[in-house]
Amino acid sequence: MAVALTILIDQHDPRPRRALSVAPGTTILKSAHEAGIDVTATCGGRGRCTSCRVKYVAGTIPPPTIADEVQLGDDLVREGYRLACQCPVTDAVTVQLAPPLEEAGFQILGVEGQGARRAAITIDSGVVKQVVKVELPREEHHQTSDLEQLLAAVGLPAESAGAGLLGSLPAALREDGGTVTVTTFAGHILAVERGDTALMKFGLAVDIGTTSVVTSLHELESGEQLAAVSSLNPQAVFGGDLMSRIAFAQFNPTNLRKLHTRILGLLNQHVEQVCREAGVLPKWIFKVVVVGNTCMHHLLLGIDPSYVGLAPYAPVMRHAITLPAHQLHLKTAPEARVCLLPLVAGFVGADAVAVALATRIRDTPRLRVAVDIGTNGEVLLGSSERLWACSAPAGPALEGAQIRHGMRAARGAIDRVAVDDDLRLHTIGETPPLGLCGSGLIDLIAGLLDARVIDATGLIQVEERQALPAALRDRVSMRGEERLVVIARAGEQGAPRELVLTQDDVRQVQLAKGAIASGIAMLVHVAGVPLERIEELMLAGGFGNYVSIESAVRIGLVPALPRERIRYVGNAAALGAQLALLSEAERARAETIAAGIEHVSLAAHPDFEQIFVDAMNFPARSPR
Amino acid sequence: MAVALTILIDQHDPRPRRALSVAPGTTILKSAHEAGIDVTATCGGRGRCTSCRVKYVAGTIPPPTIADEVQLGDDLVREGYRLACQCPVTDAVTVQLAPPLEEAGFQILGVEGQGARRAAITIDSGVVKQVVKVELPREEHHQTSDLEQLLAAVGLPAESAGAGLLGSLPAALREDGGTVTVTTFAGHILAVERGDTALMKFGLAVDIGTTSVVTSLHELESGEQLAAVSSLNPQAVFGGDLMSRIAFAQFNPTNLRKLHTRILGLLNQHVEQVCREAGVLPKWIFKVVVVGNTCMHHLLLGIDPSYVGLAPYAPVMRHAITLPAHQLHLKTAPEARVCLLPLVAGFVGADAVAVALATRIRDTPRLRVAVDIGTNGEVLLGSSERLWACSAPAGPALEGAQIRHGMRAARGAIDRVAVDDDLRLHTIGETPPLGLCGSGLIDLIAGLLDARVIDATGLIQVEERQALPAALRDRVSMRGEERLVVIARAGEQGAPRELVLTQDDVRQVQLAKGAIASGIAMLVHVAGVPLERIEELMLAGGFGNYVSIESAVRIGLVPALPRERIRYVGNAAALGAQLALLSEAERARAETIAAGIEHVSLAAHPDFEQIFVDAMNFPARSPR
Repeated sequence: MAVALTILIDQHDPRPRRALSVAPGTTILKSAHEAGIDVTATCGGRGRCTSCRVKYVAGTIPPPTIADEVQLGDDLVREGYRLACQCPVTDAVTVQLAPPLEEAGFQILGVEGQGARRAAITIDSGVVKQVVKVELPREEHHQTSDLEQLLAAVGLPAESAGAGLLGSLPAALREDGGTVTVTTFAGHILAVERGDTALMKFGLAVDIGTTSVVTSLHELESGEQLAAVSSLNPQAVFGGDLMSRIAFAQFNPTNLRKLHTRILGLLNQHVEQVCREAGVLPKWIFKVVVVGNTCMHHLLLGIDPSYVGLAPYAPVMRHAITLPAHQLHLKTAPEARVCLLPLVAGFVGADAVAVALATRIRDTPRLRVAVDIGTNGEVLLGSSERLWACSAPAGPALEGAQIRHGMRAARGAIDRVAVDDDLRLHTIGETPPLGLCGSGLIDLIAGLLDARVIDATGLIQVEERQALPAALRDRVSMRGEERLVVIARAGEQGAPRELVLTQDDVRQVQLAKGAIASGIAMLVHVAGVPLERIEELMLAGGFGNYVSIESAVRIGLVPALPRERIRYVGNAAALGAQLALLSEAERARAETIAAGIEHVSLAAHPDFEQIFVDAMNFPARSPR
Repeated sequence: MAVALTILIDQHDPRPRRALSVAPGTTILKSAHEAGIDVTATCGGRGRCTSCRVKYVAGTIPPPTIADEVQLGDDLVREGYRLACQCPVTDAVTVQLAPPLEEAGFQILGVEGQGARRAAITIDSGVVKQVVKVELPREEHHQTSDLEQLLAAVGLPAESAGAGLLGSLPAALREDGGTVTVTTFAGHILAVERGDTALMKFGLAVDIGTTSVVTSLHELESGEQLAAVSSLNPQAVFGGDLMSRIAFAQFNPTNLRKLHTRILGLLNQHVEQVCREAGVLPKWIFKVVVVGNTCMHHLLLGIDPSYVGLAPYAPVMRHAITLPAHQLHLKTAPEARVCLLPLVAGFVGADAVAVALATRIRDTPRLRVAVDIGTNGEVLLGSSERLWACSAPAGPALEGAQIRHGMRAARGAIDRVAVDDDLRLHTIGETPPLGLCGSGLIDLIAGLLDARVIDATGLIQVEERQALPAALRDRVSMRGEERLVVIARAGEQGAPRELVLTQDDVRQVQLAKGAIASGIAMLVHVAGVPLERIEELMLAGGFGNYVSIESAVRIGLVPALPRERIRYVGNAAALGAQLALLSEAERARAETIAAGIEHVSLAAHPDFEQIFVDAMNFPARSPR
């Protein structure tokens, strides 16, 4: 028996609609495609992007899938947005196709916390495209030039045109009888293209982490994300954490150049990938916003980070800087502007500023904490009154690196684990398990703590395993000198090889969570407020699409606040970069925020050592 | 019998002096060196530079040698300057060692014409070096960065520091305990060097001609020229004159790139050569001023000149532009500023503006003409009231190119010729003759006209040669279809091969002088003034170190004004570039001048054709 599905085709006009009759259980995407309705599905209908989103306007809204929650976020889900690729049609419904994000307002995390509406930002990327008809020089006695005629048409002074622009100007002016599209940003002409290309206006938001680099491509008028790509930072082969990477470059210009060119090379790969995926030409990318920690920032610019790694760990520069893409050999429009958000200190960088921007931590008098989990984590604590920040060098464990069978949050990664009388694994893509990503690792250790496979000091309880349920017991063993837990035997759930959690892996997680937890503890200490006064703790980071708050609390990564006060906010640094990309007001705001952040140096603080030692152990019992 | 030679050692203080007793006839340079007095002789005492200049302060001043005249110029010679390497001591004299050029004022051509004193310019290159002690970041809680500490020390905002500068900043700041030399120009920091390098401040003046490129290196505090180099423009292999070079690049990006990289490559060779010669490191070059015609300007910037070669011959841009050296891959200080003077029209470029600047043509109400002889010649006519300019496409003949035995004004070039009953040749360096340079060519044709070897139509009088003196007669002949005059037989004056002047060579000179002469005639016509009202005609150009005014008048290159109204002013375009290098006021003045020049398009003028035809013939009889 068929079900009625009505699709509103036009984003702005409810009139054009198609009434379909579909087999129950067919997804909206499949139904639409079969009816010849063109619905974009950038990820191929795998729930990995937002391009096929629909909004329910009539009928029962189905419960959100995990992909809905991850891709669209709580707020959009609450408003009736769903991914067409994830929604089977079961009842008669009417959906609006691809409601643009600008109408809904661009997502900003938690201005008023959970349950409140998102604040909308006004999209104003600063990149302006103007189609003008230029009066070409026509007679010899008229003293003018191509550029002067162009400037007259757009009303800009000669200083606005860089030399790089002039090479192709004469041809561009003449190929379409003088009709050109002039792209400007902050008083600079970025490009002159023949004909009308006003719609072609894109930008990149880039988050360069110590371990992962995430790039998203956006249409600059609507803000819509057209594609995103994430890769391992290729500098990691020269040192997994910041200090080892700085040591590699220290007083060694050749190694510095290696790190510099590696990251530039990766960014160019990202440009190519996102452009190919979205069908956008790289020359139409006119603005790039980059965030990253101080060391990543310096290496991107080719700045010697040697002294960032030596007390007093001073950065070489801190101000927001904008430079033409060709200066970084970035293969976007050559005159595209690359904007780097400002830094705060040697180990509190533009990524922390971006987190502060995205979480709106300064917008409310309520005391909140934002924790950006990463190889070089950062902790922010504050409100509209004051804002403190410190770095928390967690190492790459929570990103699945330097863990025996760790891996990035990619297909096949164990991203969720439940422990009862045995281990229950969930993998990304529900394929055979290949390794553990950060969220799976946290879940696993939390579960093993509850099951007493690991004790509060972190020791794997090989000697006491007899007390465990049989299935669990069989997973705990001593091989040579090494204590370990077998997560999956070869062949189990289709695993191509045995996967284990070693004692050393547990120690890595302890170090990581200890760093983060002591960062939080230090800021609470410096701010002089009791922990209970923290009204919200926002957990951010790129360690998987998902992290269980319960598990994070269980292992002591974050303090045992009431559950409703803790929220996972996704990759807030990347989101901050996107905000600065799509809004010049937001980019300006980043500078104000950076100037107001008070840096707390952990190592220089006399109470730090005790706090860190205290934070290394796991909480004695489950607070659940 | 020894002669007394007193040398004043200090440039600023007449007290430190050395009294020598030297053998008569010894040069001052040799005498000084033998007495252990350190006199700079950059060219090795060959009369090729000005570094060993002295000024006679007592005793009889010897008559100037040719080297004195060529290197020091009429004005300095008149003031008692001589080259120490050229002056034998014959009477008791006192000389001042190396009087700096800044005291004498930097040479400017003819503000008040011949006989008047040179006007001095105030040297102010805009490049400022400051030695500062930077307070390095010392403790972790102090929120600052290397750059902020530097900026605080020099009192500049963050925008003044380009990203390129930051790479080596931390090391520079720390290598000498925070003492650094900061170089600035127009609000930009160009370099931060460790320690005190305040004295190391140099600049280049570059004149890019269609055929020749001349680069001079200057110390920016005194203005002193330390080295100069001149080369054939390597683009010439792709087309000798502007139109053929534009045709080569027209709508052909590969060829455009060839022309672009050729000139950049040559400039880098010049940087290396002048730096080596003067013992200066390229990284100490902080300002470069470039002049050249519109096409050379565009090719240097990589701008497509296709439409400069098509009616209405509009340039792509005309405004003065300043860009960092690294953008042109110029191997000076990477952040050195390259300043290109403004353009006027498609065929009246920055070289014409530089000529107007150097000749001070706008500074007086007297009506004057400046003729810049070159492959693409320019004529300026005007006064403080109005200033007209036109281009005169002379072709490269007067630079010795596209002439059978033509050559540049280098060692072995015949630079002067007298004709009586035979030819009398003078060569540069007084070595065996290798070919004819521009000045020799003009002399030769003038002499042959007077001797009636060539008639007013330019025809070599092979049939009438019996009327000539025997020696001359034997030089005139018909070989096959070709009329020619043998300038030197193989072995004559040591010539390694026979040198001839062909009928075609004469035609090339006729075309060249016709272009120049009709340019002058057109401007006189447009200005509506009788020729007699022209109070001074300044002949400029790089066609040899010397040109005979009489010969230039004889062949009709310039009109037959009274001899004292015509003056050879040397390479005025290069001098204009030097003025803009050494003085920001002069560089600003170039913009005012350019804006005030009224361009006269020859080809578009209805009367041009008749004027050009009239100008092709040689004047019927010698006006002497």
